[in-house]
Amino acid sequence: MAQLFYFADLFGVAVFAITGALMAGRKSMDLFGVLVIAIITALGGGTLRDVILGNHPVSWIRDDTYILIASFAALGTVAWVRMTQPIHEKGLLIADAFGLAVFTVYGTEVALQHNVPMSTAVIMGVMTGVAGGVMRDVICNEIPLIFKKEIYATACMAGATVFIVMRLLATPPWLDTSVAMLTVLGIRLAAIRWHLSLPQFHLLDRD
Amino acid sequence: MAQLFYFADLFGVAVFAITGALMAGRKSMDLFGVLVIAIITALGGGTLRDVILGNHPVSWIRDDTYILIASFAALGTVAWVRMTQPIHEKGLLIADAFGLAVFTVYGTEVALQHNVPMSTAVIMGVMTGVAGGVMRDVICNEIPLIFKKEIYATACMAGATVFIVMRLLATPPWLDTSVAMLTVLGIRLAAIRWHLSLPQFHLLDRD
Amino acid sequence: MAQLFYFADLFGVAVFAITGALMAGRKSMDLFGVLVIAIITALGGGTLRDVILGNHPVSWIRDDTYILIASFAALGTVAWVRMTQPIHEKGLLIADAFGLAVFTVYGTEVALQHNVPMSTAVIMGVMTGVAGGVMRDVICNEIPLIFKKEIYATACMAGATVFIVMRLLATPPWLDTSVAMLTVLGIRLAAIRWHLSLPQFHLLDRD
Repeated sequence: MAQLFYFADLFGVAVFAITGALMAGRKSMDLFGVLVIAIITALGGGTLRDVILGNHPVSWIRDDTYILIASFAALGTVAWVRMTQPIHEKGLLIADAFGLAVFTVYGTEVALQHNVPMSTAVIMGVMTGVAGGVMRDVICNEIPLIFKKEIYATACMAGATVFIVMRLLATPPWLDTSVAMLTVLGIRLAAIRWHLSLPQFHLLDRD
Repeated sequence: MAQLFYFADLFGVAVFAITGALMAGRKSMDLFGVLVIAIITALGGGTLRDVILGNHPVSWIRDDTYILIASFAALGTVAWVRMTQPIHEKGLLIADAFGLAVFTVYGTEVALQHNVPMSTAVIMGVMTGVAGGVMRDVICNEIPLIFKKEIYATACMAGATVFIVMRLLATPPWLDTSVAMLTVLGIRLAAIRWHLSLPQFHLLDRD
Repeated sequence: MAQLFYFADLFGVAVFAITGALMAGRKSMDLFGVLVIAIITALGGGTLRDVILGNHPVSWIRDDTYILIASFAALGTVAWVRMTQPIHEKGLLIADAFGLAVFTVYGTEVALQHNVPMSTAVIMGVMTGVAGGVMRDVICNEIPLIFKKEIYATACMAGATVFIVMRLLATPPWLDTSVAMLTVLGIRLAAIRWHLSLPQFHLLDRD
C-alpha cells in the first residue's frame, strides 16, 4: 500500500513537471528555466506544506528520486515537442487530475500526523495540491489559472474533507485513501467534461 | 492584556483579508481565488516570519480561528459587494492602519522572544506587517503598492523601533505596546491624510 | 580561511543588493522599496535554502551584518545614481559573477553538512546562488532573466558539481573551494564575453 502510494506520488510529480515544462515553453525559457519551473511546479506544494508544518527533512531533500523524476519529465517534454509530437491536452488534463488527487490526500495525511485542527488539515491538503501550480504561474508572470478557471481547488477541498471525515470514522486506510482520491478525481473530471466553474467575483477597478 | 491583544490580532486578520478579497475581485477571480488571496494577505506576513524564525507551530496551524476569521471576512466582502453596497475606502484604510499597527508590534515581540539582534527584530516587525500585502500583490500580478505609494512600511519601522527602545528601557508591557502601536497608527494616518510619500528612485531603463 | 570566506560572502551580499536596488529604480520604487528589493535579492537565496533545510537560525537572523551591508549597498546605489554617476555595467556583471561563485559554493557546503543526497546538494548550491535574483524579478513583475538569458545557473550547477566531486576525493578545503568558485566564475565570465546561451524551448501558445 505504502509502496503503491509512493509510485502514485512519483507519477503526480512527473505530470506536474510536464505542465511546468509546457508553461516554460510558452514563455520561451531556456533549458535551465524549463527544469526549474518543472521542479517548482512538481515539488513546490509539498515543500511549502513541509516548511510551514516544520516537517523536516522535506521529502525531496532526503530522497532525490523526486528531483530526478521531475527533471526527466521536463527534458522528455522538451524532446517530445522538438520532435514535433502533438501534446495530448485531454490526456494531460486527466493525468493532472490524478496527480492532484494523490497530492491532496497525501498532504492531508501528513498534516493529520502533525495533529493540527481539521480545518488546517484541509488547507494543507489543498496547498499540497495547488501551490506548485500557483508558484509556476506567478514566476511565469501569469495570474494563477486556478483562481479563475474551472473547479480545481474545490475538488481538493472536497477530497481532503472526505478523507478527514472517514479517518474520524476509523475506516480502513486503503478505503479512505481510495474514496478521497476518487472524490478529487471525479469532481475534477466532471469539471473538465462540463466546464464547471465557481461564480466569479467582479469588482470594478476605481483606482 | 494578552486577551485584548488576541482580539486586536483577529481584527487585523479580518481587515487584511478584506483588502485581499477586494484585490481578488478587481482581478475577477472565482470564489476560491478570493478565499486564497484573502487568507494569504491576512496570514502571509506572520507565516513568513515564523518560518524564517523557525517558530513552530505557526499560529494558524495550532489555532484555526485565524483561518475561519479570514474566510468569513472574505465571503462577507463578496456578499457585501454583491448587494451593491459601497466600499467605504477611507474606513478601510483606517482599519488597515490599525491592523498594521497590531501586526507590526506583535511581530517585533515574537522576534525579541527569539533573542535576535535588534535590527533583525525591526525587520521581523515590518515583515509581519507588510509581507502579506506584498504576496497579495505579487500573486495578483501587480508591483507591490507599498513599494511605491504613501508611507506605509516606514510607519512599521518607526513603530518597531519605538517598541524595542522602550523594551530596553524596561517600560511596562502595556505602555510599550500602546505607544508603539500609536506610533504606527499615527504615522500611517498622517500619511493618508496628507498624502505623504518617500522620495522615489527613478532609473531610466537602458536595456 | 573561514574569515576570508565570510568577507567574500559579505561582498556577494553587497553586489547582489546593488543589482536589486538598480531593478527597483527601473520600477520607480520609493526608498523603502529599494531597501526591501535589495535585501531580498541579497539574502533571499540563502534564506530559502536554510528554511527548506531547517537550518535555523538563518544567517542574517543571528548576525545583522548581512542586513546592514545590504542596506548600505542599496542606499549607496541610490546616492550614486542621484549624483548622476554612470553605472559601470561590465564591472557590475563581473562583481555579480564573483558573488554568484561565493554563494553557490557556500550553499553547496551548507547542504553537504546536512548529509543530503548529492543531487540535492547541487540544487541547494544553485538555489543559494540564483533564488534571490528570481525573487527580485518576480516581485518586480518580470519573468526572471536567468530563465531566458546568458548561461547563469548552469555556471552554478557546474561549480556545485565540481565542489562535490572534489569533496568526495577529499581534497583540502582551500583547494575544492577555490576550484569550484573559479569554475562558476570562469563559465559565467565566458558567457558574458561571448554571449553564450542555452538553447531555448519555444512552444506556441494555443490557448
